Amino acid sequence: MDKWYEKSGDQGDVVISTRIRLARNLKEFPFPCKLQDEEREKVATAVRAAILGEQSAISSSFEYIDMKRLTETQAVSLVERHLVSPEFISERQGRGLLLMKDESVSIMINEEDHVRIQVMKQGLDLEGAYEMADRLDTLLDEELSFAFDDRLGYLTQCLTNLGTGMRASLMLHLPALQESGAMGRIAGSLSKLGMTIRGIYGEGSEPRGALYQLSNQVTLGLSEQAAMSNLKDIAMQLISQERAARQAAGKHIETLDLVGRSLGILRGARVLNNDEFMKLVSNVRLGISLGVIDNISYDTINALLIEAQPATLMENAGKTMQPQERDVLRAKLVQEALH
Amino acid sequence: MDKWYEKSGDQGDVVISTRIRLARNLKEFPFPCKLQDEEREKVATAVRAAILGEQSAISSSFEYIDMKRLTETQAVSLVERHLVSPEFISERQGRGLLLMKDESVSIMINEEDHVRIQVMKQGLDLEGAYEMADRLDTLLDEELSFAFDDRLGYLTQCLTNLGTGMRASLMLHLPALQESGAMGRIAGSLSKLGMTIRGIYGEGSEPRGALYQLSNQVTLGLSEQAAMSNLKDIAMQLISQERAARQAAGKHIETLDLVGRSLGILRGARVLNNDEFMKLVSNVRLGISLGVIDNISYDTINALLIEAQPATLMENAGKTMQPQERDVLRAKLVQEALH
Repeated sequence: MDKWYEKSGDQGDVVISTRIRLARNLKEFPFPCKLQDEEREKVATAVRAAILGEQSAISSSFEYIDMKRLTETQAVSLVERHLVSPEFISERQGRGLLLMKDESVSIMINEEDHVRIQVMKQGLDLEGAYEMADRLDTLLDEELSFAFDDRLGYLTQCLTNLGTGMRASLMLHLPALQESGAMGRIAGSLSKLGMTIRGIYGEGSEPRGALYQLSNQVTLGLSEQAAMSNLKDIAMQLISQERAARQAAGKHIETLDLVGRSLGILRGARVLNNDEFMKLVSNVRLGISLGVIDNISYDTINALLIEAQPATLMENAGKTMQPQERDVLRAKLVQEALH
Repeated sequence: MDKWYEKSGDQGDVVISTRIRLARNLKEFPFPCKLQDEEREKVATAVRAAILGEQSAISSSFEYIDMKRLTETQAVSLVERHLVSPEFISERQGRGLLLMKDESVSIMINEEDHVRIQVMKQGLDLEGAYEMADRLDTLLDEELSFAFDDRLGYLTQCLTNLGTGMRASLMLHLPALQESGAMGRIAGSLSKLGMTIRGIYGEGSEPRGALYQLSNQVTLGLSEQAAMSNLKDIAMQLISQERAARQAAGKHIETLDLVGRSLGILRGARVLNNDEFMKLVSNVRLGISLGVIDNISYDTINALLIEAQPATLMENAGKTMQPQERDVLRAKLVQEALH
């Protein structure tokens, strides 16, 4: 079955993916941080049964993963595929994951909250992602009793999630805005509007591959629809700014040179570390949107962005590898995908 | 008509070209540095008549170029094509060039000596180049009286050419020996054997494109055949050392990575300066000899090495250009040649 990330969607030149996440907790249990091991197991069993039990109409689409049974590589690969949060794998005892087979839906059990429903869609598709998340929420609600307060809404461990418990995020590719130095100013304006934008894996000085995550911050006193509508309005503005910046950049031979060289190196390299890969692939993605590269699809790039990550690379190869060996395999994977 | 450099020859993986140069002077004139303008013209007229005159059987293969009529770009392009020496174009008054149409033979008039016959062949072909030079020498000797001393041989302005007046040179591509750091030691050993090896256009710290010129130094007390035989013996040793060093380098993924990236950049760049071009093309040439690049011929590379040079690029485009514009055109030329 194709993975969800092997396709591109609406506004696919800028928006790589949409994610909706709902935080829910079971009424009869304290928040996960207060739970003993055996109580965590009870929560996991209950949530698992709600999806995989005999009454469930969707059980055949899901598999259950007991997190403590995974190897470190398998666990990290789940993070790379955006199926779980980095925090979720830092301590795996008593945590479980329900995963839909196309990897577009994941339900983390005993992360910060008892239940975190997460739906991923390619491109910009807040409605589609929310519809799916809402269906799962309804289904779980029938089997489980969620902690809900008429005035506050869904109760969550962290106050920032109180209310709808919904976080809507878009993964954006913003190479031209980043290159123009506008991201600092944009982040400042967005925070005043109740939005956050931050680089993906933002460890170095620049977000890797010019990838940014745009999310709503406000969950209280605002419906899910209103929050998504705000996010979409702002996303459309950012998309149009990014497109304008790309068009301007595309008039300079230096940009076309950078794009051409990046594709050349990706096709020719025999050793490719992840940082360099992310930088080069970002340039190629820019080249596709400028029309100077016309024989490579966003789908190919989006899939590579996941499959070339270190743990996923090893997981697909079925063995652990030293960094150098991994860099050789990454180069091979990239070469085959781009030829 | 194809230019001589658009083909590759014997030992073409290492030897790009062979050059034989004979220095001759006319008995009845002082050396060029002592000549007045009108006497220089007389020398030029006499040599020109010997080749292009009605008695000449080869007149239709040659054209005469009055050096002072050339633009600076045209003159520099002659140097880039190895048809004349850099010194020859530094002062062009009273100097002429007889050029064979495939550019394999050039006769400089009033360079350091009255006549310098130069024959180029692709690959290693000392015999072929000498045979041609000797035929032209004989032909000119019938019409002109060369300054010759029974004891000293041909008289030349510079003592280092006295005797045979012959300089035999091979242009070698030695990327692996250069990379191994062996060139200093090799140059030292060769000078003891009466040979010189030096980088082409040796201005920077490293010869551009790992190209070296190996020449005989001794012209006195040694026949042309003996000088060429010595040169060939030494060349064959160098060739085998270079091949061994390439095989060793080819076992390292870093070498294959360098080769692959270099080809990728050459194919993808939209702006390419000459230094970078020379470095990258040297790596690609190495890749061809290692068999990791199998769809590009030495002929293509050898032709590019000439045609991508700044003045030749402008000459073929029919206009002068700023460096940036030239770098864009070079990238285009390279891209078309390598696709």
